[in-house]
Amino acid sequence: MALLDENRLFPVEGSARSLARDLYDTVKSAPIVSPHGHTDPRWFAQNEAFPDPAQLFVTPDHYVFRMLHSQGVPLEALGVPRVDGGPTETDGRTIWRLFAKHYHLLRATPSRIWLDHAFQEVFGLTERLSDATADDYYDHIAQCLAQPAFRPRALFERFNIEVIATTESPLDDLKWHRMIRESGWGGRVITAYRPDPVVDPDFQDFARNVETFCALGGQSGTGWQAYLDAHRARRAYFKEFGATSTDHGHPTARTENLSSAEVEALYNKVLSGKADAAEREAFRGQMLTEMARLSLEDGLVMQIHPGAMRNHSDPVLGRFGRDKGYDIPTRTDYVHALKPLLDAVGEEPDLRVILFTLDETSYARELAPLAGVYPCLRLGPAWWFHDSYEGMTRFRQMTTETAGFYNTVGFNDDTRAFCSIPARHDVARRVDAAFLANLVATGRLQEDEAYEVIQDLAHRLARQAYRL
Amino acid sequence: MALLDENRLFPVEGSARSLARDLYDTVKSAPIVSPHGHTDPRWFAQNEAFPDPAQLFVTPDHYVFRMLHSQGVPLEALGVPRVDGGPTETDGRTIWRLFAKHYHLLRATPSRIWLDHAFQEVFGLTERLSDATADDYYDHIAQCLAQPAFRPRALFERFNIEVIATTESPLDDLKWHRMIRESGWGGRVITAYRPDPVVDPDFQDFARNVETFCALGGQSGTGWQAYLDAHRARRAYFKEFGATSTDHGHPTARTENLSSAEVEALYNKVLSGKADAAEREAFRGQMLTEMARLSLEDGLVMQIHPGAMRNHSDPVLGRFGRDKGYDIPTRTDYVHALKPLLDAVGEEPDLRVILFTLDETSYARELAPLAGVYPCLRLGPAWWFHDSYEGMTRFRQMTTETAGFYNTVGFNDDTRAFCSIPARHDVARRVDAAFLANLVATGRLQEDEAYEVIQDLAHRLARQAYRL
Amino acid sequence: MALLDENRLFPVEGSARSLARDLYDTVKSAPIVSPHGHTDPRWFAQNEAFPDPAQLFVTPDHYVFRMLHSQGVPLEALGVPRVDGGPTETDGRTIWRLFAKHYHLLRATPSRIWLDHAFQEVFGLTERLSDATADDYYDHIAQCLAQPAFRPRALFERFNIEVIATTESPLDDLKWHRMIRESGWGGRVITAYRPDPVVDPDFQDFARNVETFCALGGQSGTGWQAYLDAHRARRAYFKEFGATSTDHGHPTARTENLSSAEVEALYNKVLSGKADAAEREAFRGQMLTEMARLSLEDGLVMQIHPGAMRNHSDPVLGRFGRDKGYDIPTRTDYVHALKPLLDAVGEEPDLRVILFTLDETSYARELAPLAGVYPCLRLGPAWWFHDSYEGMTRFRQMTTETAGFYNTVGFNDDTRAFCSIPARHDVARRVDAAFLANLVATGRLQEDEAYEVIQDLAHRLARQAYRL
Repeated sequence: MALLDENRLFPVEGSARSLARDLYDTVKSAPIVSPHGHTDPRWFAQNEAFPDPAQLFVTPDHYVFRMLHSQGVPLEALGVPRVDGGPTETDGRTIWRLFAKHYHLLRATPSRIWLDHAFQEVFGLTERLSDATADDYYDHIAQCLAQPAFRPRALFERFNIEVIATTESPLDDLKWHRMIRESGWGGRVITAYRPDPVVDPDFQDFARNVETFCALGGQSGTGWQAYLDAHRARRAYFKEFGATSTDHGHPTARTENLSSAEVEALYNKVLSGKADAAEREAFRGQMLTEMARLSLEDGLVMQIHPGAMRNHSDPVLGRFGRDKGYDIPTRTDYVHALKPLLDAVGEEPDLRVILFTLDETSYARELAPLAGVYPCLRLGPAWWFHDSYEGMTRFRQMTTETAGFYNTVGFNDDTRAFCSIPARHDVARRVDAAFLANLVATGRLQEDEAYEVIQDLAHRLARQAYRL
Repeated sequence: MALLDENRLFPVEGSARSLARDLYDTVKSAPIVSPHGHTDPRWFAQNEAFPDPAQLFVTPDHYVFRMLHSQGVPLEALGVPRVDGGPTETDGRTIWRLFAKHYHLLRATPSRIWLDHAFQEVFGLTERLSDATADDYYDHIAQCLAQPAFRPRALFERFNIEVIATTESPLDDLKWHRMIRESGWGGRVITAYRPDPVVDPDFQDFARNVETFCALGGQSGTGWQAYLDAHRARRAYFKEFGATSTDHGHPTARTENLSSAEVEALYNKVLSGKADAAEREAFRGQMLTEMARLSLEDGLVMQIHPGAMRNHSDPVLGRFGRDKGYDIPTRTDYVHALKPLLDAVGEEPDLRVILFTLDETSYARELAPLAGVYPCLRLGPAWWFHDSYEGMTRFRQMTTETAGFYNTVGFNDDTRAFCSIPARHDVARRVDAAFLANLVATGRLQEDEAYEVIQDLAHRLARQAYRL
Repeated sequence: MALLDENRLFPVEGSARSLARDLYDTVKSAPIVSPHGHTDPRWFAQNEAFPDPAQLFVTPDHYVFRMLHSQGVPLEALGVPRVDGGPTETDGRTIWRLFAKHYHLLRATPSRIWLDHAFQEVFGLTERLSDATADDYYDHIAQCLAQPAFRPRALFERFNIEVIATTESPLDDLKWHRMIRESGWGGRVITAYRPDPVVDPDFQDFARNVETFCALGGQSGTGWQAYLDAHRARRAYFKEFGATSTDHGHPTARTENLSSAEVEALYNKVLSGKADAAEREAFRGQMLTEMARLSLEDGLVMQIHPGAMRNHSDPVLGRFGRDKGYDIPTRTDYVHALKPLLDAVGEEPDLRVILFTLDETSYARELAPLAGVYPCLRLGPAWWFHDSYEGMTRFRQMTTETAGFYNTVGFNDDTRAFCSIPARHDVARRVDAAFLANLVATGRLQEDEAYEVIQDLAHRLARQAYRL
């Protein structure tokens, strides 16, 4: 008995299925290139054992706890901490049993595939998680976690990770990255520059963040030029710790291209806290263009991740804080939104901007046509809710005919769930193998080309796109 | 010769096809649970013979007459009554021949499957309807309709309907429901509370409706509290006739969460007829939140059906009145629209709100992410124009990965075409069997789980979601 | 070895594949009916040899040069002329080699299928284009082009084109069409009336265009009635050269139905150059309704092609001018936008309006429901970026269930790439055969019907819809 079907995610049919299998076999063991993600550098710096199974698989995984909550399980019962420090479940086994009892809720979701993959491939489990097997699972995983082979660095090596990027605020001192480097350990863990806390006026403590930021960046004041120079300084600092990219999590894709005088006035107003919603949005938009200009100076690849309405529920935000599974995608326009940035720097041969979306309607209508003509643009992989078999399939079906393969950038696992990383890359490789096999079976690609493209999609494009 | 392929709607391929068949066979004869629909309770109350074949299959079926009209057939020729009482075709056979002559227009539409299913399974016909067979069809169906076995109650029993909900205005006295109950017949026909005529200020005769409504609800005036109490009273009255749900057909999904003082002022303005379009929309939005609060009091499940622009053609509305096939879906936002209601009551464990959409772009982007986290939300099945093989398939493909199966509610036939009810449930069961078989064939679900889920989708979830 | 798979684009599976093949075989050699396109009538008038291979396949093909540019190839290097007349590559072989070197960028795009089809079927080439084969290709194609059998009229006949429509401005004197007619050659090349330059106030030189136009139309002034009469006169003139349709390339689908007095005032303001953006948009919208009224007078079929944001990049527009691959689709509303026109003339039995979209989200939500009820409306085929295997498949999957086949109009090749015409029709015929075979295999259509529908889709509907 096994949790995983050997031929999962491949076409159901004979020759396409076997070609998909053959294509997949050539990349199955390829190194993992992970240019965008949210693992904690502290894991690799300290290399301590992961705590109990619930802390590894349930409590921090918003994909999991949101689904259980949607069927009435209180977040407290899953150990999600409260803002007010009030009581929540702390017993790992109790949380795990609750999780096991509701495991059927995850049927046919990507979480189910990732979890089963980790259970089988990382922990050697082969019976399905359920009420009946909950305790066996818990005991077995807990036992594993106590062993050196399950510490972060050992898993990193076992997962065959060539390079992994974490994401840090410009206010971060990167001490864990420094500790990793100084440890002499050979794993390549790099940072990425995510300036939202000092670029988004709606971010908590924005003005104070900017003050700290300018000081960290070696500036004596917080004027517009000092602020820009602080970005230059912090970007350079991040590059010392391997950063090759920046990341921008804006509510929309709006960009602006204001004159210097306009920008400076807007910046001052925003910093004063007197800017209205439209001005704050304009400032975020202008900062994308400023960041693009800085990328032309220092070569960092820009990533734009727009379109999530964060923390949709006021009561849940108040009780449990940010990032509790209540981020909901919204319609996102790219055509009008990106024009100012693209008019300013879109034809620069050295600029690289990777676009993501949570609005799949933009794939064929906006993103593929834009990436299929602007030299600076590339399409990031299917993101977040769309990081799945159906989501990736739709991504390829809706972007390839207009943008081709070479305006895409391979896969991002984009996760803080460490044990799911091999599973996620495996899903992406299988979906791409299936997609390519189907192209060959329908006469849209020749077989020798498919063998080349599968390598591109599995690792080459990620290295190239992110300048790794 | 047969009109229906035994393996219709299943995967074309070997093992997935046979698994789909096996899954389907386990629910093929399961009872029909029909929690949302528009059959006429009078049929079951009076149990009279249906009139002629054209009156059964053509003249009242907007799916059919809109398609013929789109190719130039005047609505008058199909017997659709005119507002001014002017002449329209009344001869059933003449209408039927016109229908038969244009039957090819329905190729590959769901209507074709529903009609062929009714022709074959209900009336035993096996040759395709056409010019050549029109009269044979007409004579045969007319002959059947004259027999007791084709009266509404007999068909209800033959269709194996466990429960069916009709939909009534709060102004309705439910006399047909009373007659059904008093008849001693065992068929379970329940009502549902659809307050649009007293909640939507743009509804014809809104102010007069409210007046009647408050009186019906035992109130002496029409003030805001009286109005709310009238809702309480009418909802309780509807519950006496089996209602377990309310239904709300709003142009958008907008909700509001105004203060008591604001609501009362808005209500008074709306009732006075002086409210502008924005205020009328705000009132509709506020009433969704009020209805959710009443649901917390009395346990009725809320259904929200937004997004249709009703009666798109002014000339057709003027000549033939409402509901003549000119309702056209529009883009619908849920993320911003539902926030006020969800902030107010979205975390209440006893609330249940079932969301529908005509805008498929919201499935993966908005509805599945919302239903996948809010405990009160469930997703209604693919609706109206999407109540079809392709539509249901897209629904499952775009919602399952984020919302799972258990945030969906099974199937609604949502029809006034009585003979199509078994056909519609059959299509849904086949599509779900096909979807599940494909999940198993691609290693995304284990076979034993598929056998469990097919039961959930075919009848269990409908009972649970609607508290039947 | 061959560039093309004989069974390309068919279902991968056994019986559906062979039925698709059989259906396709019945239309494979059917005449090409091309009711909408952009070939140059001068080709057929003068019948001169096409210049070199790069001028035939690379420099004028925006699908090709945009993809190469997206990966950093300067447009100058592909011979795209500059507005300022500055230097660009002029050596055909140099351009061709650059194209060949980047041919892998087109993998899995429709351009790749069209090009391979032309290479194999028109020029007899069977090895894949690449660095290695670039010179052989160039020499071979150049040699062919020098022969009489590769002149435009010979290819027209070899391609089995029954009729082809070009598209001309109302300011065009149609001299090439006159020359074709007077030549005595039997090829049917007709024009179509595309009044954008005199209908869109944002068109370059709009006011001067209107002046010229009114004079051409035999009017002594440029007043509103003179302007309308000029349309009448030019439409009649176009009809003399075979026109059966008009074409309207608006940024949105907005229509208006203003009173005569309002229109005249708006027209005068727009002509004066003093109208703001909203008024210019209103004028475009009003002109669609005016054109519909003129269609009722003269029987020309209207085509509406909305939704492209033209010339997205200011720098590229400044350097290379219009139509350089920078047209990007945007979200397009039809439901509200078309209501004024449809309320005015939508129930007229003799009106025919063919709607296109670049926003696939409108297929199932708006366009199929509209075309499935309004007698005047038909759906144009998958357009531009969606003129592809996946795009056409989505079109059929998302429109057929609500609009059926008979509210669609067959295929448009819509191209200025002459050698791609057989390839494009071949793709459409294969996709439709595959779609129909899948319907039969899933029991949604009977086999004899599929054989009838494939003829409809391949040529009959195009003739009927365009009144050819």
